[in-house]
Amino acid sequence: MKRRAFIQKTGATLLGARFSGRASSRTPPNIVLILADDLGYGDLSCYGSKIATPRLDRMAREGVLFTQFYSASPVCSPARAAVLTGRYGVRCGVPGVLTPTDTGGLSENETTIAQMLKPLGYRTMCVGKWHLGRPAKYLPTSRGFDEYYGIPYSNDMDPSILMHNTDIIESPVNQKTLTRRYTEQAVSFIRNAGDSPFLLYMPHTAPHIPLAASPDFVGKSKMGLYGDVVQEMDWSVGQVLDALTATGADQNTLVMFTSDNGPWFQGSPGRLRGRKGETFEGGMREPFIARFPGVIPSVVSSRGARGQKPIDEMASTLDLLPTIAGFTGAPLPATTLDGVDMGPLLTGSASRVDRPLFLYFSGWNLQCARSGPWKLHLSRHNAPAYTPEPKVGLFNLRLVNPELYNIDSDPEEAEDVSGQNPDIVAAIKAEVAMMLPGFPSQVQSAWRDTQNRPVGTTEPGNWPSPI
Amino acid sequence: MKRRAFIQKTGATLLGARFSGRASSRTPPNIVLILADDLGYGDLSCYGSKIATPRLDRMAREGVLFTQFYSASPVCSPARAAVLTGRYGVRCGVPGVLTPTDTGGLSENETTIAQMLKPLGYRTMCVGKWHLGRPAKYLPTSRGFDEYYGIPYSNDMDPSILMHNTDIIESPVNQKTLTRRYTEQAVSFIRNAGDSPFLLYMPHTAPHIPLAASPDFVGKSKMGLYGDVVQEMDWSVGQVLDALTATGADQNTLVMFTSDNGPWFQGSPGRLRGRKGETFEGGMREPFIARFPGVIPSVVSSRGARGQKPIDEMASTLDLLPTIAGFTGAPLPATTLDGVDMGPLLTGSASRVDRPLFLYFSGWNLQCARSGPWKLHLSRHNAPAYTPEPKVGLFNLRLVNPELYNIDSDPEEAEDVSGQNPDIVAAIKAEVAMMLPGFPSQVQSAWRDTQNRPVGTTEPGNWPSPI
Repeated sequence: MKRRAFIQKTGATLLGARFSGRASSRTPPNIVLILADDLGYGDLSCYGSKIATPRLDRMAREGVLFTQFYSASPVCSPARAAVLTGRYGVRCGVPGVLTPTDTGGLSENETTIAQMLKPLGYRTMCVGKWHLGRPAKYLPTSRGFDEYYGIPYSNDMDPSILMHNTDIIESPVNQKTLTRRYTEQAVSFIRNAGDSPFLLYMPHTAPHIPLAASPDFVGKSKMGLYGDVVQEMDWSVGQVLDALTATGADQNTLVMFTSDNGPWFQGSPGRLRGRKGETFEGGMREPFIARFPGVIPSVVSSRGARGQKPIDEMASTLDLLPTIAGFTGAPLPATTLDGVDMGPLLTGSASRVDRPLFLYFSGWNLQCARSGPWKLHLSRHNAPAYTPEPKVGLFNLRLVNPELYNIDSDPEEAEDVSGQNPDIVAAIKAEVAMMLPGFPSQVQSAWRDTQNRPVGTTEPGNWPSPI
Repeated sequence: MKRRAFIQKTGATLLGARFSGRASSRTPPNIVLILADDLGYGDLSCYGSKIATPRLDRMAREGVLFTQFYSASPVCSPARAAVLTGRYGVRCGVPGVLTPTDTGGLSENETTIAQMLKPLGYRTMCVGKWHLGRPAKYLPTSRGFDEYYGIPYSNDMDPSILMHNTDIIESPVNQKTLTRRYTEQAVSFIRNAGDSPFLLYMPHTAPHIPLAASPDFVGKSKMGLYGDVVQEMDWSVGQVLDALTATGADQNTLVMFTSDNGPWFQGSPGRLRGRKGETFEGGMREPFIARFPGVIPSVVSSRGARGQKPIDEMASTLDLLPTIAGFTGAPLPATTLDGVDMGPLLTGSASRVDRPLFLYFSGWNLQCARSGPWKLHLSRHNAPAYTPEPKVGLFNLRLVNPELYNIDSDPEEAEDVSGQNPDIVAAIKAEVAMMLPGFPSQVQSAWRDTQNRPVGTTEPGNWPSPI
């Protein structure tokens, strides 16, 4: 306890060094980044779920919990591109979901967090679902990771394969034991890390369908198989945290947990509107929990009481790379970054950080833009993307009357307040128009196509399908 | 206050007479049934909305508020058929939404609440959106209502027309003043009711799109035009209640408020999944508030404190006709009724009522069935019905693994618990199989078609569109 208190006192100085971009003389911190797959904003008990997730809840009490943290895409591959690069998927060659037969992947021009940290001497491992390209040149071992163990794309895609580095070691995959085996790999990596700082990127397969839990967890949650799967993932987080404690790495490790996008067929987006595949809040807002003893203040250590106030400031997966750069002193990649260093929010040294407009893409389509509490919906698909095929005739349609929501006061996106706030609508539209030329040509041509397909004037009869 | 207390004391006896189906010697009560259009479960302040609805909140405090009250359809016309007949729309010739050019309507074989009450000497009026058939023989004046003032179908359908009885009196309709004009008509009807008991059926146009509020209400809610429109409807409810008080009818009037289906583009389903057009809870669960001084116990009169405990027992619009029959002593129509008399729930003389399986239809398609807390999803469309056209290739698909939700503990329908409860799944399936032959042939053939289109096994690769 004394050690923790000491680190806390000196934290400000250490962080000052980190945030100025200079490497601290101290060993740079280990980074553990755990990602769930299709986990909803309302699927952890610390976010209001009836599924008990005691280890993530405890991690939140020992660190911070965000209430407005976003994935940069409502579907898997572009969400993961953003996690690893700090850039929207549309910039990285990954606008949508990659399939097993796709020959592409995360553009080789991109710098991943792993590639950013390697020059600093980090040992790096990716354990779990990759989904950023199946050819060997796109696999984790070509993208800055020393080692890879996991499935290269979604667990509902054929053929289901488990890989170690670039080798297929199991097909079809026994999905029931996947979370347990991922966990064993992660714990082993931590235990064998030696003196080097390390990066563990752990993108779980759970709770993506097909749902599968190991025998120890089936029926345990009393909240269906989905609940069981979430609980096994929570157990896994606990195992990783326990391994950090056992090895003494705990005090110098930043652990972060979030998900790639909202819930699909099962799971809960909390009170939010929409699900996976949609740019409503439920498709992109995610749990985010971070823990770094002595650096991220915890209620347990600093105030002696449980239930730390959550952080309501907006942040996103785009911020992960710049934030990790801030904590480690790694130089930022020489490219346009869409995220910002949210370190000051984590450490409590600032209550807000400046950021550019946050954009909500669906494929190449720019659908929404967020500035402060304001979210402007500019376009929308004629059917949610999470529904099964056939999706014949799926178009992105321009909302003739863009909808404005105050996300702070109306997170459900229930009451369009564009009518009373024409200045805000105009300001966000102007900023979007300024930003668009900076994006790939496909974004701009998708935008032009959308402008030709208007929907939803307030005149009767112009709604395509009155009911 | 003394009069109210007296009525309360004698209420039990009076109700005993009512519920046994015998007409009381007292004048039968007036019935006021107010219906919103596309109002979400979360759109009133007494249901958690930030839109202030003080008159409905007060009505709830003076009466009862239900937390599990359902429309019998997630879209307009069949929902209204059920309100007026106590039978599913599929039995009444109204499986889906009627358009202005449709030549059909609510089957002439059906008995509406108005037709049920006319023989008892009731004066009857319908003020608002009808949507159960445009030809004269289907209009309210042919279905038991002495007078009709309103629009015959949805306000987003062309041509928009306002009718008085069978005459078109305005086209296009000035939608901004519609709620105010409905209210004037309703208040005038109450004031001129004379000595006869009366039935006022008031299906509002609000808050269906296109949203329109009168100048007094624009900007008033601070929750967008949707909020303004809801507030004007709340004001209207207040005007009706005030008119009842002013005429002295208040003490012998049962007032009920609900909506036809969940929210469409704006509005909030609360924490529930799905919206208008979907058989998830958000598409069909609605606010329900009822008030009958001295008969329905109110916290204000009976316990001297605000904040009556809501009623969590399931009920539905199918129950309205049998319940009104119970309160008025009217003989029930000689046909199969899908609802039950929920009077005992309203008066507090019972905490639950027996009812058959509650079915969730979308068009001719039986999608879900509910028994106690259990809701079994058996089939689902490949796209939600509320999305704009084109909806090319819209199919009802059988869920190979039906999903079971415990609605009491998991109202969000987040965690399928079918795996742990095979007996419950089997029991509900068996009951569905027993009930199906009692429904029209179109329901049965839609069911057979659905069985040939399976979706969603838990095997990888069988999900039609993995992402």
